[in-house]
Amino acid sequence: MSTGAFSIDQLMELAGLAVSQAVYRVQPLDKGRRILVACGPGNNGGDGLVAARHLFYYGYRPTVFYPKRSKNELYQIVFPFNVQRIADHGLQRLAKQLEDLEIPFIDDFPAAMKSTDHVVDAIFGFSFSGQVREPFQAVIQSLQDTRIPVTSVDAPSSWDIENGPPKTGLGSSFMPTALVSLTAPKPLVNHFTGRHFIGGRFVSPSIAKKYHFDVPPYQGVDQVVEVGSSEQKL
Amino acid sequence: MSTGAFSIDQLMELAGLAVSQAVYRVQPLDKGRRILVACGPGNNGGDGLVAARHLFYYGYRPTVFYPKRSKNELYQIVFPFNVQRIADHGLQRLAKQLEDLEIPFIDDFPAAMKSTDHVVDAIFGFSFSGQVREPFQAVIQSLQDTRIPVTSVDAPSSWDIENGPPKTGLGSSFMPTALVSLTAPKPLVNHFTGRHFIGGRFVSPSIAKKYHFDVPPYQGVDQVVEVGSSEQKL
Repeated sequence: MSTGAFSIDQLMELAGLAVSQAVYRVQPLDKGRRILVACGPGNNGGDGLVAARHLFYYGYRPTVFYPKRSKNELYQIVFPFNVQRIADHGLQRLAKQLEDLEIPFIDDFPAAMKSTDHVVDAIFGFSFSGQVREPFQAVIQSLQDTRIPVTSVDAPSSWDIENGPPKTGLGSSFMPTALVSLTAPKPLVNHFTGRHFIGGRFVSPSIAKKYHFDVPPYQGVDQVVEVGSSEQKL
Repeated sequence: MSTGAFSIDQLMELAGLAVSQAVYRVQPLDKGRRILVACGPGNNGGDGLVAARHLFYYGYRPTVFYPKRSKNELYQIVFPFNVQRIADHGLQRLAKQLEDLEIPFIDDFPAAMKSTDHVVDAIFGFSFSGQVREPFQAVIQSLQDTRIPVTSVDAPSSWDIENGPPKTGLGSSFMPTALVSLTAPKPLVNHFTGRHFIGGRFVSPSIAKKYHFDVPPYQGVDQVVEVGSSEQKL
């Protein structure tokens, strides 16, 4: 599915905003404000960075785990241009926005799990390859073992987009509290039993028709909608 | 005030989103869904384009007046790069997103005024030079003469950012129903007597402190907040 006329910056902003609104419902402020956001190296991680910023403004105290951030410290687009470099630049900017808010970045994820009220899993999303490497193995192990509520972005990390959780081993018993499907649910939702949200209110009716999915019943100015089990199926 | 680590795409998306949420309050869906959005050539117009898109998703029927859109039909960034060209590219993309939703673009603004329920004034904003030229003179005349509610983006168009409405002539008796100040109120709000919103929930506490303005009391996940007359003053 192409991004149409949208820039990656725009889509990531709207996706992260949707995630933040879902977290606001799953983890109301009075249930604990400490949110640990685990960000992978790609656009799923970018959605997490955006969500962390919005959560800060809502009154939460986010902490960010973002181990694979780009090493390019120049913080500007340099020649030669290429798509990867521009994307990296966008992610760097998102991280810088959090630094400007003095949001802490932490290195020891399992340790940070001991002092948080909620986790946002923005490690892997739609383009997950099926291979979990360190440092993310330890993160997924922590998410699988914990009783702290977890909200996953687009896919529970380590799950196969088509087939859901791995049959055995790492991730096989990982079931997040909530899942925010971006633009449309992926086949893996058939294996998901938690609270299911759809976010990303920017799919045109013509695109929805072309790809045969229903636009969910968003309310008011909401950027997410919680859908029941019957709507979870593709 | 610099944009910090934010891209223009991001800021325009968040500004337009804030405007759309203010319109949702000033013009609830059951009061009429036809929204005419008047967009100027610069970033204020871009905020209007973004607002039109979000309003469409909320269930409104937006129509757009955008006479000064860039003539570059190639719709891609081409060398040589420069800031103006990249900004134009962003505005073209925003317009294309509306075309993909089959939102009508109209040429005759006074005629379109006869069949709308609300107008969004996104013609001139913070960088207004003091000179109103055609085709925008006729637009401002229409806004001044109408009884249809108008929501202005950042500044009532034709108003001076410091001194408010012109003393005589065009714009001197233009008083919009609502104003959405972006990031912070401008001095002109001292001359404004309508409903006043502040939008743009992305100003860091350190920036707010540096520029000596208070972060308004946003609620929940709202991107705008309505402020009373006492908070309107700088």
